[in-house]
Amino acid sequence: MGKEQALKVAIVGSTGYGGVELIRLLLNHPHVDIASVISASSAGTPIAAGFPHLLEIVTDTLDGVDPDLIKSKADVVFTATPSGVSAKLVPQLLEAGLKVIDLSGDFRLKDGTEYTKWYKHEAPPAEMLEEAVYGLCEWSGRAEQVKGRRLISNPGCYTTAALLGLAPAVQAGWIDPGTIIIDAKSGVSGAGRGVSLNVHYAEMNENFRAYKVNKHQHIPEIEQLLGEAAGAPVTVTFTTHLTPMTRGILCTMYSALTGGYTEQDFIRLYMESYAGRRFVRIRPQGELPATKEVFGSNYCDIGFAVDARTKRVTVISVLDNVVKGAAGQAIQNLNLMMGWEESCGLQLAPVYP
Amino acid sequence: MGKEQALKVAIVGSTGYGGVELIRLLLNHPHVDIASVISASSAGTPIAAGFPHLLEIVTDTLDGVDPDLIKSKADVVFTATPSGVSAKLVPQLLEAGLKVIDLSGDFRLKDGTEYTKWYKHEAPPAEMLEEAVYGLCEWSGRAEQVKGRRLISNPGCYTTAALLGLAPAVQAGWIDPGTIIIDAKSGVSGAGRGVSLNVHYAEMNENFRAYKVNKHQHIPEIEQLLGEAAGAPVTVTFTTHLTPMTRGILCTMYSALTGGYTEQDFIRLYMESYAGRRFVRIRPQGELPATKEVFGSNYCDIGFAVDARTKRVTVISVLDNVVKGAAGQAIQNLNLMMGWEESCGLQLAPVYP
Amino acid sequence: MGKEQALKVAIVGSTGYGGVELIRLLLNHPHVDIASVISASSAGTPIAAGFPHLLEIVTDTLDGVDPDLIKSKADVVFTATPSGVSAKLVPQLLEAGLKVIDLSGDFRLKDGTEYTKWYKHEAPPAEMLEEAVYGLCEWSGRAEQVKGRRLISNPGCYTTAALLGLAPAVQAGWIDPGTIIIDAKSGVSGAGRGVSLNVHYAEMNENFRAYKVNKHQHIPEIEQLLGEAAGAPVTVTFTTHLTPMTRGILCTMYSALTGGYTEQDFIRLYMESYAGRRFVRIRPQGELPATKEVFGSNYCDIGFAVDARTKRVTVISVLDNVVKGAAGQAIQNLNLMMGWEESCGLQLAPVYP
Amino acid sequence: MGKEQALKVAIVGSTGYGGVELIRLLLNHPHVDIASVISASSAGTPIAAGFPHLLEIVTDTLDGVDPDLIKSKADVVFTATPSGVSAKLVPQLLEAGLKVIDLSGDFRLKDGTEYTKWYKHEAPPAEMLEEAVYGLCEWSGRAEQVKGRRLISNPGCYTTAALLGLAPAVQAGWIDPGTIIIDAKSGVSGAGRGVSLNVHYAEMNENFRAYKVNKHQHIPEIEQLLGEAAGAPVTVTFTTHLTPMTRGILCTMYSALTGGYTEQDFIRLYMESYAGRRFVRIRPQGELPATKEVFGSNYCDIGFAVDARTKRVTVISVLDNVVKGAAGQAIQNLNLMMGWEESCGLQLAPVYP
Repeated sequence: MGKEQALKVAIVGSTGYGGVELIRLLLNHPHVDIASVISASSAGTPIAAGFPHLLEIVTDTLDGVDPDLIKSKADVVFTATPSGVSAKLVPQLLEAGLKVIDLSGDFRLKDGTEYTKWYKHEAPPAEMLEEAVYGLCEWSGRAEQVKGRRLISNPGCYTTAALLGLAPAVQAGWIDPGTIIIDAKSGVSGAGRGVSLNVHYAEMNENFRAYKVNKHQHIPEIEQLLGEAAGAPVTVTFTTHLTPMTRGILCTMYSALTGGYTEQDFIRLYMESYAGRRFVRIRPQGELPATKEVFGSNYCDIGFAVDARTKRVTVISVLDNVVKGAAGQAIQNLNLMMGWEESCGLQLAPVYP
Repeated sequence: MGKEQALKVAIVGSTGYGGVELIRLLLNHPHVDIASVISASSAGTPIAAGFPHLLEIVTDTLDGVDPDLIKSKADVVFTATPSGVSAKLVPQLLEAGLKVIDLSGDFRLKDGTEYTKWYKHEAPPAEMLEEAVYGLCEWSGRAEQVKGRRLISNPGCYTTAALLGLAPAVQAGWIDPGTIIIDAKSGVSGAGRGVSLNVHYAEMNENFRAYKVNKHQHIPEIEQLLGEAAGAPVTVTFTTHLTPMTRGILCTMYSALTGGYTEQDFIRLYMESYAGRRFVRIRPQGELPATKEVFGSNYCDIGFAVDARTKRVTVISVLDNVVKGAAGQAIQNLNLMMGWEESCGLQLAPVYP
Repeated sequence: MGKEQALKVAIVGSTGYGGVELIRLLLNHPHVDIASVISASSAGTPIAAGFPHLLEIVTDTLDGVDPDLIKSKADVVFTATPSGVSAKLVPQLLEAGLKVIDLSGDFRLKDGTEYTKWYKHEAPPAEMLEEAVYGLCEWSGRAEQVKGRRLISNPGCYTTAALLGLAPAVQAGWIDPGTIIIDAKSGVSGAGRGVSLNVHYAEMNENFRAYKVNKHQHIPEIEQLLGEAAGAPVTVTFTTHLTPMTRGILCTMYSALTGGYTEQDFIRLYMESYAGRRFVRIRPQGELPATKEVFGSNYCDIGFAVDARTKRVTVISVLDNVVKGAAGQAIQNLNLMMGWEESCGLQLAPVYP
Repeated sequence: MGKEQALKVAIVGSTGYGGVELIRLLLNHPHVDIASVISASSAGTPIAAGFPHLLEIVTDTLDGVDPDLIKSKADVVFTATPSGVSAKLVPQLLEAGLKVIDLSGDFRLKDGTEYTKWYKHEAPPAEMLEEAVYGLCEWSGRAEQVKGRRLISNPGCYTTAALLGLAPAVQAGWIDPGTIIIDAKSGVSGAGRGVSLNVHYAEMNENFRAYKVNKHQHIPEIEQLLGEAAGAPVTVTFTTHLTPMTRGILCTMYSALTGGYTEQDFIRLYMESYAGRRFVRIRPQGELPATKEVFGSNYCDIGFAVDARTKRVTVISVLDNVVKGAAGQAIQNLNLMMGWEESCGLQLAPVYP
């Protein structure tokens, strides 16, 4: 694709939704050249054969998963691979001298035992779990920690929405971490491109359902991060639902207030917490965000409702699961890793309507 | 429409979604004849002109809202009218000697002050609020109370889903009423047939949003009923969302357990509570209901997930807001009022897919 | 399911969308008892395990495909089986003394060679193709031909919509059969319950596409029937599209007029052609039908637009592909076969909205 | 919004879907600065108040429609105004010394009488209809004609899809212009942001319908352009449908072949006709485009199916009605008018899924 003097990147898992969105966004990035699109299952065929929307835009043939080949073409790799696959592949890529931004769940948990418990796969080596920087860009100085590192673990889509919505209040001690309930709703693209009856059009259209209640693998990730914010272990109730749309996550989050904080107080606290971070937008009082208002963009929008009757706050956060919940945040991490402006290549307004 | 010896009913508000669904269901009812379809706004035009799906099925012209005319044609009236309208109209209908099943919110709250606070209308006379039987058919002996009465207040769609899902556990003391959080999602038909930007197709499609957070007028109705079940006042957190589909409500409800109850315990408790009530279906362990599984039918399905980690139960209930949440339950109330079999005319399987 | 003195029927292919809709509709039929639900792939499991919407409604366990077992339970069989399967199974069922209404394409074409060309399967025996009555109930005296027969071939969904929309005009000689173009749009349930990327939710939502252009297996069926109406061979251009909804077919059909016929003329002609046939509704002048207006019902609605500028007529027909396009018409055929009122068990109004 | 040395543009009608999409795309344009967003109905309020997706992205307050004010801020104006409004406003803008790209239908027809017949408004002055360049960028040397002009009429969404799909074959004489039938399907955003029952969510979801059959105002525009290509007047049959999705147009177009042309012949002809025009993509043989494959982008994709049986060709074209059908093509025209690279600011890949 040939930009001069650009950073060469490779994308493993280019035929999944995360991979194909990395392509869309990186095509718009001024400092990056997509040097290799890689797919274990479709190597040898042009990517546009399976994704006609890329016709004449990406003319490359898919490469196989070969660390040496990748190294001969690229310096940084995005691994948009299933859980369990990244755990095995990433060490090889690092060994080959590549830098890696991993979009799977394999390097998010610091405790390998927890990983195996929730993911049912063997954990990566402990020192790699240690080394991986958890790339929740807007939180807790991570933007600085990412810089210059060789292994970044990109946060989960639900985790990003939940954490950005809860972390400032938890850290400030305004809400009781023991009372947190996260009711999450996702568009169906979050389930990936693998066909199954659950996401068969005629079964999912005009339908709304919960899934993996209390069992979703993002639970330990959320608790790990909230625990950091609280300075003590946190246990949350977390429910995921599929809603009949393609993109978007909305989290409705409930917690008991520890004091008489108002909506204006929350808005002020979050404005300060996210000062200078352009991809988090705090909504004015009385306004709550909807998923469509961030569709196709890297924004995470947050709004608040405080209920004096119940002394609880309801925090609502939205993001596009394929962008801020996956490919967009991965590129944001790349930007920070490389010392570029955080929003480089990501300054796309939401597609509306 | 001429069934012999059938009960003559009239439907005020026939051009709203509740009214037109009453027509669909009553056409299938063996003991009822639709004697008059009534609309304040479209009187004088054939109903099929505005609803072509009724062509050759209902050939009637819409009548105006005239209690004497109604009395000359019918014995029972369904008032599927907006809040504030029923409060004024229902007393006139009763005065004219008609029996009334009211689908609005006007007669649901026993306390007129509460009504005015949440609905912003003047309340009906106190004695009528007292007289009205709240027709949540499956709960607390109401099926018997309804029999022979002249004024039944049909429950709200959200309330029905929430109450059927929570009441047995509250009454049994298994959950702590002070910790109840109800996260409700509704199809867009719940917003009615009035056009507005919020429910404009291009704004609502591929979108998910919360609305009226902590402010929905079903809150006092839910609290009134849960208070009865608990034997003490209950305050809940209640959030409503619009999901991009036409029909269906799913409530995800959270509460702290007061003991070590299991999913099997909950299933047993609810099976007993709803024994003999065919329109409530308790799902087997490990299975949670989806809205499509009750589409077009009068069922309310309920499932449970107990989380040992957080000592909370998650109850999920689903119903079709236009049927069990409105027209279907109203007909169920008619059946009980008339002493007929509860399911008369309502034995329709869900439309799937 | 146990209605007294009812006709016992079996449904082969109960776990497909056609089969499960037969169940929904037959549950409402006064003279029929579903004696056996049958599935080659899921025999031995309760049908409600795979279709929770049937919980407590159909408690039967699925039987395997065994003609003798079927004969021991039922007198009439609906075969809602894939093409190629019916061709082999139906002769065995007839041999066992059963009557058969076949919903597949296997017995629709009179010419076995044509069948093999379009369906890529071996054709059923020629004498069975001859024996099978093509059950397009409203057309050309077929309602009478069906009576008392043992093998009825239920028409295709597209064919029903196209034929009902075109046949009267072709037979009357008002349009030139050589100029017929049929542009058909279908909801996704028409593609069946088998998972594939094409009908994966995230690929099909917010998408519109053509498929099998000039190659759809309903083409020879349409041409066979139009040829009968025209009294000479007819060749049509036929395009099928998938539209992002679950149910519904709309055919937009174009043809050159052979004379100065007006919309009123067409309405009169079709009113006469379909006089007494309640499931075909002719729309008044200026009104064209939409798919939602027949959703869940057995109606086929037809409207006309004549263009004086181009001397062409545009005929628009709609139906619910799962009802009038499959299960509903099959039951209509059962009714006619048994000498019952044609609309028995099918008098359901469309579900709206 | 402040890019240095950029061209200053104003957008009249910023609160319609065309206007808001101009904003999204122009934010990504390297040589343009949005100097004024204008709305007759919402002047004085921040644009982000009505469009929260623009929060912190566009902080401007909406201006009123005042040619002198516009001239003081901008050099070029996009008028995304309703038909009838542009006819009156554009002359004032030109008078004030502004250049105008008009997205309405008011300057598309060369014959004012035709305009009034189809649009029911008074036509703009004849000399202005004459002066306006019809900006169908990829057709017939128009890219050159646009350069340096002060008034460009941006083509209609349907017209663009239909013309790009038909014009080369008509000009080459490969198809018989007298037999052209255009069956068009559009997402609902094409109906604009004005609320009405037709595009009310609950009425339009899970629905498919035709509208304005033989009466759509794009008919004379299509015929004007096809007439130019054919060198003689052309009359077409044109049907428009609404499909339950937000964005996208698919035209299925039928015509009799004048010779034995194959799909490969068509592909070759169109490849040549559109050589060098990056926003038209010709699909390889056997592949037909779907709307989702151009969602959010400026592409128009075209595929062919030739039917030897009927000697007709089926041409299928798709585009995003809000981009290539409106705002994207308008910016393409701006680029050509200014002598910039045609794709400037428009090199966005489709959003998929």
